[in-house]
Amino acid sequence: MKRRDFLRFGAAVAGAPAVLPLIDLREPDRPWSSVRDDGDVIKLSSNENPLGIPPSARKAIVDGFPDANRYPGDSNAALVDALAEYQGVPEDTIVLGAGSTDVLRMTVQAAAAKRDHVRVVIAEPTFEDVFRYSSPFPSVELVRVPLIEGSWAHDLEAMKREADRDSDGAFVYVCNPNNPTGTVTSVAEVKAWIDQAPQHFFLVDEAYFEFVDEPEYETLIRWATGRPNVVVARTFSKVYGMAGIRVGYGVAAPRTAARIDEFAMGTNPNHLGAVGARAALEDDAYVRESIETNARALSVVHETLDGLGLDYMPSHTNFVMHEIRGSLDTYRSRMLEAGLRVGRPFPPFTDRNRLSLGTVEQMERWAETVRSFRRKGWI
Amino acid sequence: MKRRDFLRFGAAVAGAPAVLPLIDLREPDRPWSSVRDDGDVIKLSSNENPLGIPPSARKAIVDGFPDANRYPGDSNAALVDALAEYQGVPEDTIVLGAGSTDVLRMTVQAAAAKRDHVRVVIAEPTFEDVFRYSSPFPSVELVRVPLIEGSWAHDLEAMKREADRDSDGAFVYVCNPNNPTGTVTSVAEVKAWIDQAPQHFFLVDEAYFEFVDEPEYETLIRWATGRPNVVVARTFSKVYGMAGIRVGYGVAAPRTAARIDEFAMGTNPNHLGAVGARAALEDDAYVRESIETNARALSVVHETLDGLGLDYMPSHTNFVMHEIRGSLDTYRSRMLEAGLRVGRPFPPFTDRNRLSLGTVEQMERWAETVRSFRRKGWI
Repeated sequence: MKRRDFLRFGAAVAGAPAVLPLIDLREPDRPWSSVRDDGDVIKLSSNENPLGIPPSARKAIVDGFPDANRYPGDSNAALVDALAEYQGVPEDTIVLGAGSTDVLRMTVQAAAAKRDHVRVVIAEPTFEDVFRYSSPFPSVELVRVPLIEGSWAHDLEAMKREADRDSDGAFVYVCNPNNPTGTVTSVAEVKAWIDQAPQHFFLVDEAYFEFVDEPEYETLIRWATGRPNVVVARTFSKVYGMAGIRVGYGVAAPRTAARIDEFAMGTNPNHLGAVGARAALEDDAYVRESIETNARALSVVHETLDGLGLDYMPSHTNFVMHEIRGSLDTYRSRMLEAGLRVGRPFPPFTDRNRLSLGTVEQMERWAETVRSFRRKGWI
Repeated sequence: MKRRDFLRFGAAVAGAPAVLPLIDLREPDRPWSSVRDDGDVIKLSSNENPLGIPPSARKAIVDGFPDANRYPGDSNAALVDALAEYQGVPEDTIVLGAGSTDVLRMTVQAAAAKRDHVRVVIAEPTFEDVFRYSSPFPSVELVRVPLIEGSWAHDLEAMKREADRDSDGAFVYVCNPNNPTGTVTSVAEVKAWIDQAPQHFFLVDEAYFEFVDEPEYETLIRWATGRPNVVVARTFSKVYGMAGIRVGYGVAAPRTAARIDEFAMGTNPNHLGAVGARAALEDDAYVRESIETNARALSVVHETLDGLGLDYMPSHTNFVMHEIRGSLDTYRSRMLEAGLRVGRPFPPFTDRNRLSLGTVEQMERWAETVRSFRRKGWI
């Protein structure tokens, strides 16, 4: 950098410019910076599907190469058609995104951009992305409501009180099942609240929908299309095994969908993702194998934790939040030394680890490792 | 939909709710809705690369399948490293996106979200996406400044006057070369303005950089990293032939990059795009072939237009804006009947068509077609 440039840059950043810089240049707080992985380590930390992408998606992607130099409008339109048919909803209720996180981004931006002030009410802890996308907006007042101790469900009554304090209507995020706890919140109670609160807007995240084993749990997708104040987010990153390929979608009443879509990028998701997702959507065998593998892996984890007398939250997902009796940092370092990448901090659960499920064999390796920790008095 | 649901939905949409709905439900204006393609038609309408994705990218994508079930943090980090080395800039100056349009989105949102009012100054016509991403923000006052008649460069003096009317600093978009005209604006004059205007923020779009054949044109990438008020956007959709795979990036001073990155999705671009882009970046043979093919295709178009006495704008891109002498709708319909999808309306150029370049063979087919139109008195 030339000295002249440095002076100019330094002055604009550190000094007091005559007017505020258009892009605020204070040091940003980015808790979500990505951490690189180490190669041969078994990754049990990001709630991914250990089976790899579906072979059907792999084939569709290779078959899709000849069009990959073209913008993905056609393949996205075909994916919308397929999703509408799959879910039994009209096409204009579907909003595509690069993962469900993109739907979360669009939706919270659609609220935050339009108002001078809006309360965004989320659980604590819950999936971080609604916080992430809200935080750059000065209009957003984020309110975190602790989960109910024991059931670890969303505390809907407390969330309601917080939402009702925004007389213009609040933005409410319900992650169901919840990440990082794996626990479900009563769908009947969520529906009852939405019905009673047309002034609030509800973003219901069903990323882990397919893993839920609970008779009273159901999707809100069809129900949502009849109401203007709710969107349901879904992803191909979990049961469909395509986290790297970035495909998700939201479902909402047509006008709501259209308004959210105003915050979409013009060309998401990518063509390879769109053709892969379309194939995966029809791949019942892969989905069944994902669900069965996950259930068996979960059994290994439950039996191991039960055997060691370690507490865990009732999981309806592909991860388990469990007791570790000691420092999370130390536990994670020791696991990494044993070749297993687990968890990350999820305040306020400082004495628990979130363990993502791998294959049955990988979980047996984890089980041996955690039992060896017990023999050493580490857990 | 049940009648009860319809009444509730209808009431909330059409009636006057007690409070404004959190997500504004008026009918949105979406001029950019995607149009489906017809199959066997030659597509000369979206400024894509007719060569298909690079074979190197194809191989890298297939090799990347085993990690495609994982979130793309590692492959994105590797892409940042590769781009930093390629451009000779520090890693913390790079912001990744799902195409350069994603960088446009993040940057304009970073300005629009933080202020009660901001002037966004763009050329007319220019690439639509800055308008698209600005338009949902009530804070944005969009100002369009016509290109200079004849040279079809940005009218920087007029843009400056419009920008200076925002005493808090305006947001200025310079698309160079410009889409849909293919014309370049003096880089020296852009730099001079940026140096004189630390209160404004400049987004310089170099999507077509590699196609420019003009000695005084240069990239602003390295220059931008020494200034807090400029970001340069680049894409893998044009010379690298990967429009469907959605990879682009911005380069800016580190703090500026970090602030823009606050509006990024957590996990963009996708893993297959990231590994494909890394391979393409090293594929000099493909890039050379892209540039040479484009130059030869451009010669065919120029010779054809010269032969017919049809005016065209001096193109430094993979498209040409040319005179058609008649209705654009009619011209496009006739071209489509002949198996060629061309143009779309770019007001105020109602008597011109934007022709995207295909292979030399495809442009010869176009040349025959347009000459046959002349024989019929259609052009």
